[in-house]
Amino acid sequence: MKLHGYFRSSASYRVRIALNLKGLRVDHLAHHLRKGEQCAPAYLAINPQGLVPTLEDDVGAVLTQSLAIIEWLDETHPEPPLLPKDPLRRAKVRAFAMALACDTHPVQNLKVLARLRELGLPEEKVTAWAAWANREGLSACETLIANEPGPFCFGPAPTMADLCLVPQLANARRFGVDLAAYPRLLKAEAAAKSNKAFADAAPDRQPDAE
Amino acid sequence: MKLHGYFRSSASYRVRIALNLKGLRVDHLAHHLRKGEQCAPAYLAINPQGLVPTLEDDVGAVLTQSLAIIEWLDETHPEPPLLPKDPLRRAKVRAFAMALACDTHPVQNLKVLARLRELGLPEEKVTAWAAWANREGLSACETLIANEPGPFCFGPAPTMADLCLVPQLANARRFGVDLAAYPRLLKAEAAAKSNKAFADAAPDRQPDAE
Repeated sequence: MKLHGYFRSSASYRVRIALNLKGLRVDHLAHHLRKGEQCAPAYLAINPQGLVPTLEDDVGAVLTQSLAIIEWLDETHPEPPLLPKDPLRRAKVRAFAMALACDTHPVQNLKVLARLRELGLPEEKVTAWAAWANREGLSACETLIANEPGPFCFGPAPTMADLCLVPQLANARRFGVDLAAYPRLLKAEAAAKSNKAFADAAPDRQPDAE
Repeated sequence: MKLHGYFRSSASYRVRIALNLKGLRVDHLAHHLRKGEQCAPAYLAINPQGLVPTLEDDVGAVLTQSLAIIEWLDETHPEPPLLPKDPLRRAKVRAFAMALACDTHPVQNLKVLARLRELGLPEEKVTAWAAWANREGLSACETLIANEPGPFCFGPAPTMADLCLVPQLANARRFGVDLAAYPRLLKAEAAAKSNKAFADAAPDRQPDAE
C-alpha cells in the first residue's frame, strides 16, 4: 500500500498511527503542503479535495479522508481494534474523534489560515484564530472523557479517539495553546507517547520532516 | 428517544433524515442557535461542544456528533442500511460524507461566521467566505461521484453520503452558490427530494421553523 501524506499533516499523522498499530508497512509518498504539491494535477486526480492523506491499497483502490481510511483499516485488519465492540461505546469514541476531526482541525488547517491571510488578517490574529479553534475542541474533549479512567481516552488501549487527539495536541502547542487546562487529555497523550506505534508516526520521525 | 436539534442546522437535518429512513420516531427538542440556547448550562452538560444535534436514547444514554449518531443508528437499527456492505464502498461513502461534514460544514457554520464578524469582516466578506467553503467541498464531491450511475450518490438507495449532501446544498443556496456546476450532485438531490424520509426532515417542515 502507499500513503500519500505530509509529515506535519494531522490527518496523515492519524493514519500513520493506525497503520503502525495494525503492523502494516506502506510506502510513504510526501506532498509538501506549503509548496502546494497537493494541488498538482496528478494528485488532484486521486484526491479531488487536494488534501492529504490518500491511501492506495494493494490493487490500486484509492481511499481518502483520514477517518474513512481508519474505519476501512479497522474493518479489513481487525486486530488490534481501533473501536470498541459495544455500539454505544463506539459512538462515544467516534464522537470524540469527530469533535477534533470535524469541528477543530478543519477550522485551523493550512487552507483556512491561508484564506484568513488573504482577507488581510495580520499574523497574530491568524494564530489567535487557530488557538481559539484548538481551545474550543480540546475543552469539549476534556469534558467528554472526564469520567473515563484511561489511561488512553477510552480505556487501557488506544482507539480512534487517541489517533485524533495526539496530532491535535501537537497543533495546539504550535499555536501556543496552554494545555495545563486539559489534564485528562495530557494523561492520554502520555500513554500514547510511550507506545511505539505512536512514537514512530510522529512528524519529526518522518523522512520528509524539515 | 429525544433529538436535540435546530430546524436549520445541517447536522441535525442529517440525523432527522436517518431517523426517518429507519422509521424511528423521536421527540424533537429545539434549541435556537441564533439565540444561543445551545450554550445554556443544562445543554452543555449533555453536549460540551454546545453544538446540535444530541440524541438521547431510550435509557438516557447521550450521543453527540451527527456522523457518530448515524453510525450508531445504522449499527443498532440495520434496516435499511445507510452504508454498503463492502469495506471499500463503505470507505467511499464515508469519505464523501466527511468531505462535507469535516472539511466543508464546520468551516461555514454559525460559530465560525460569528467569529469572522467579531474580527471586523463586513457581511459580504462573511458570505463570500461561506460560499467559498461550500464551493470547495461541493466541487470535490462532484468529482468523487462523477462515475457513479446513481441516482443517489452511491447507487439506487440513499446512504450516509446523501444525508450529508442534501443539507449542504441547502446551505450553499443560502450563501448564493451557483449550483449549475454540480449536475451529478443535483441529480442525487432530486432523487432524495422525492423520498418522503428526506422531505419530512426538511428545515421548513420542522415545528421550530421560522
